[in-house]
Order: sequence, then C-alpha cells, then structure tokens
Amino acid sequence: MTERLVQQMAFILEIDRMKSILRQNVPISEPHRRENDAEHSWHLAVMALLLAEHADEPVDVARVVSMVLIHDIVEIDAGDTFIYDDKAREDQEEREKKAADRLFGMLPADQCGHFRALWEEFEAGVTADARFARAVDRMQPVMLNVATNGLRWRDNKVSADQVVARNRVIGKSSKVLWDFVSGEIARMVREGHLPQSKT
Amino acid sequence: MTERLVQQMAFILEIDRMKSILRQNVPISEPHRRENDAEHSWHLAVMALLLAEHADEPVDVARVVSMVLIHDIVEIDAGDTFIYDDKAREDQEEREKKAADRLFGMLPADQCGHFRALWEEFEAGVTADARFARAVDRMQPVMLNVATNGLRWRDNKVSADQVVARNRVIGKSSKVLWDFVSGEIARMVREGHLPQSKT
Repeated sequence: MTERLVQQMAFILEIDRMKSILRQNVPISEPHRRENDAEHSWHLAVMALLLAEHADEPVDVARVVSMVLIHDIVEIDAGDTFIYDDKAREDQEEREKKAADRLFGMLPADQCGHFRALWEEFEAGVTADARFARAVDRMQPVMLNVATNGLRWRDNKVSADQVVARNRVIGKSSKVLWDFVSGEIARMVREGHLPQSKT
Repeated sequence: MTERLVQQMAFILEIDRMKSILRQNVPISEPHRRENDAEHSWHLAVMALLLAEHADEPVDVARVVSMVLIHDIVEIDAGDTFIYDDKAREDQEEREKKAADRLFGMLPADQCGHFRALWEEFEAGVTADARFARAVDRMQPVMLNVATNGLRWRDNKVSADQVVARNRVIGKSSKVLWDFVSGEIARMVREGHLPQSKT
C-alpha cells in the first residue's frame, strides 16, 4: 500500500506543472494573462457536469469528467499545441505519446492503464463519451473568446470561417451545443468583433 | 432547452472568476505566485480519482469529484479564508451561504439544488464522501508545502503543531493518508523546514 501511495503522490506532485502550461486563451477577468491547463481542465469538468444533458447520445458523465481532468496532462512534456497552428500539429501525436508513456507510467500499473486508456479514448474521439469530452474542450475557449469580444481571435488574426471549421466537431456530439456556439460566433461577426474570412 | 442552456452558460462564464481567487499556497514550480481556486479544484479532483482506494470506508468517487470541483465556488463572492486565520473564519459561514444563494441560484432549479446539496454535504463533512473530499482538500496544500520545503508555512510563521491540529481531520477519512501526511510533516520538522511549535 505504501509503495502505491508513494507512486501516486509522486504523480500528483508532478502534474502540479499543469499550472504552468499556458494556453492561447485568457481568463475573462484577467485578459492580461493566459489561462493554464489546470484552470482549463477544471472549467471543462464543471461544464461536463452541467451540459451532459445536451449530448445527442447518452454519456457517462463520470467518465467524461475523468477524461477532461486528465486529457491535457501530456502537455506537461509535449507543450500546448495551438489549434490554429498547422505546423505544430504535425508532430503533436508523437510528442504526446512519449509524454503519456512517461507521465502515466509514474502511476501503479492499474491506474496507469486506466488513465492511459481514457486519454487514448479521448484522443480517438470515437465513443459518445469522448466525442462529448472533445465538444466541451472545443466549446470552452470559444466561449471565453465570446465573453471577451474575440480578444484572442483578434490577437491571432483568426476568422469566423476558421473558428467554425475547427469547432464544428462540437456538432458531432451535440446539435444543441453547436447551434448555441455557432450562433454566438455569428453574433461576434455581426457585432464586428470577428471577420467572416481571412483577408 | 435554450433557456436552460442560457442559464447554464451564464453560470459557466461567471465561475471563470475562480481563476482569480488566490489561495495561500503556491504552485511548486512557480513559487513567486499563489495558486488560484480553479487550479486547486482541478488538483483535488485528480487526487480524488487516484486516492479514493485509501479511504477507510468506501466512497462514491464520482460524487467526491463533483464535490471538490464545486466546493470553492462560493469563494467567488466570499473570498478565500486562510485556514490559520481564526478571525476571518468567524463570519465565513454566513458569507459563504449568501454566495451559494447567488451563484448556484444562477443555474436551472434542479442543477442549483444538486450543486447546493453537494456543497452543503461537503461543508457538513459528515458522510464518507464529504469526509474524503475534505481530507483531500486538506492534504493538497500540505503536500505543496512539503514539496517546497515549507515555503508558505515559513512565510506565515506556522508551526508543525498547528499544521497537525488543522489537518489531523484527514485521519477521519483515511488512516493511510493521515499516516503518510503526518510522516511528511514530521520529516519537515526533522529537516529544519518547520518549527515544532510557536516560539
């Protein structure tokens, strides 16, 4: 038992580094700094608890919450890959697999296997649970951008066409959520916060 | 459905402010800044997933995870109350109840009731789930302090006797976890990072 606990605690302290992995978006009330992976993952987990009822197919909320809590842990080694950066996305898979080996490998074998399988399921995005977890993961940064009138889209010269192209996968899990999100994107365009297309 | 989603989304954007509520402890690799409630809640949720097996009585891990994800949301209005600040702890309960009314009150009635009940169960600390959630909530800052050789204990002139008095409640949920944590506190004293008692 002690050996297990020592391994678990080493992992728990190692993943504290999620608090230093910065993402592209910003907290609504602190637009001068970028959000980190720990904050993002917490936000997704609460969203999953509240929004699961909108998934087209029934989902196991507890599994979805576990998935979103751990889905970005690989970024401790592999870094955050910006969704609109096609170049960085090329070797993302290989970098993240190595990271999963090392990080989940710190855990006792059964828990390593459990987290690894959840992460792979999330990455594959095939099951209803994974599709919903991915939908929430896409939806959160869009909503933070909407709440800041497109601040980070503007900084990164992103167009509404790009936002729609990258995020319409939300609709593969939930028509209700995608209708809502795409409505908000259209509103950003109408209100002059986001250009429709790249100029 | 749309009215529900609008309420849910307003709550989800409101609780983004958890990312600005600072706690007393610091991330291990960023000791120059304090951890916020969103980061803390994420860390607790992963700890709950991994450490539930050490609870003396069986716990419902999914309920514990939900509890720790939302237990600090009241601090958006009520602020963080430092565990060693006896004065601030006096009116903490009243401030937090008002905050729960306003914040959970933003949600559709059923989800408001569900989150409110989970939060009250956590606060009461009577059920096995709540005792375990509270144990993890106590354990995390202690472990961050251990990992930084007692940095924030030293800043706040806290003694080992105080740390033990405030955290021995961990043992009400898990003998294994409290044995581990109290062993780490004793090590901090032996290694000269923490005085045994107030001088």
